[in-house]
Amino acid sequence: MPTIFKRIIDDEIPCHKVFENEHVLAFLDVAPLSRGHTLVIPKEEASTLDELSLASGAAIGEALVHVSRAVVKATGASDFNVLQNNGTSAHQEVLHVHFHIIPKYDDSGLGVDWNAGELIDAEETAKAIRVAIETD
Amino acid sequence: MPTIFKRIIDDEIPCHKVFENEHVLAFLDVAPLSRGHTLVIPKEEASTLDELSLASGAAIGEALVHVSRAVVKATGASDFNVLQNNGTSAHQEVLHVHFHIIPKYDDSGLGVDWNAGELIDAEETAKAIRVAIETD
Repeated sequence: MPTIFKRIIDDEIPCHKVFENEHVLAFLDVAPLSRGHTLVIPKEEASTLDELSLASGAAIGEALVHVSRAVVKATGASDFNVLQNNGTSAHQEVLHVHFHIIPKYDDSGLGVDWNAGELIDAEETAKAIRVAIETD
Repeated sequence: MPTIFKRIIDDEIPCHKVFENEHVLAFLDVAPLSRGHTLVIPKEEASTLDELSLASGAAIGEALVHVSRAVVKATGASDFNVLQNNGTSAHQEVLHVHFHIIPKYDDSGLGVDWNAGELIDAEETAKAIRVAIETD
């Protein structure tokens, strides 16, 4: 069962397209948090960011710069958030990697709850991540 | 006045490093939202994503895949959020581009307020963004 984003990529469902190249598609979110809320997605099918190829990751990163610059210019919003959710408990709804570019205005945009804690077991955690990278 | 991230890049301030290449540095956030909360930053100095070069954007995108895969493997967290804030009203604190990789656990992680609205003036907005991209 293809996701709604795969069907948009395949032109089975229309979208308000803002950018497209070989690897990436960008279009307006149909349920926006604010005016100009845009999605940037890879054409490669992957549910979560950690499953994406490095080549698609690079293409997405480049497109995020390119598209966010245009969103800022077109909307006049100087501030914005980029959010990408992985997994149901992290608020992901469509199981195809997507980055949100969300302009921030006085009355709309992304709300964030930031409950920062202490950094404990830092060297142990950092080492575990380093080892995971080195053995990837 | 260099930011704290520039001073980390320049080795003037220590960090719990997890990854580094020519363009990118990744290290643990010292005030984490959850265990394994990691920052991925470009070595290029830019305050916000729209000011970054496309080359650094691509390097960051590739590193996000690489590092998030390692964070998932090292922490055992299957779900996570990637967040990047631009501008004070969008919760940016350090004025050097940084992407947060934030593992989501039952009791910790990123909280998000999602007040979606209707998509209005869609074609007008999409066209304005397309024009901004084409004239960039």
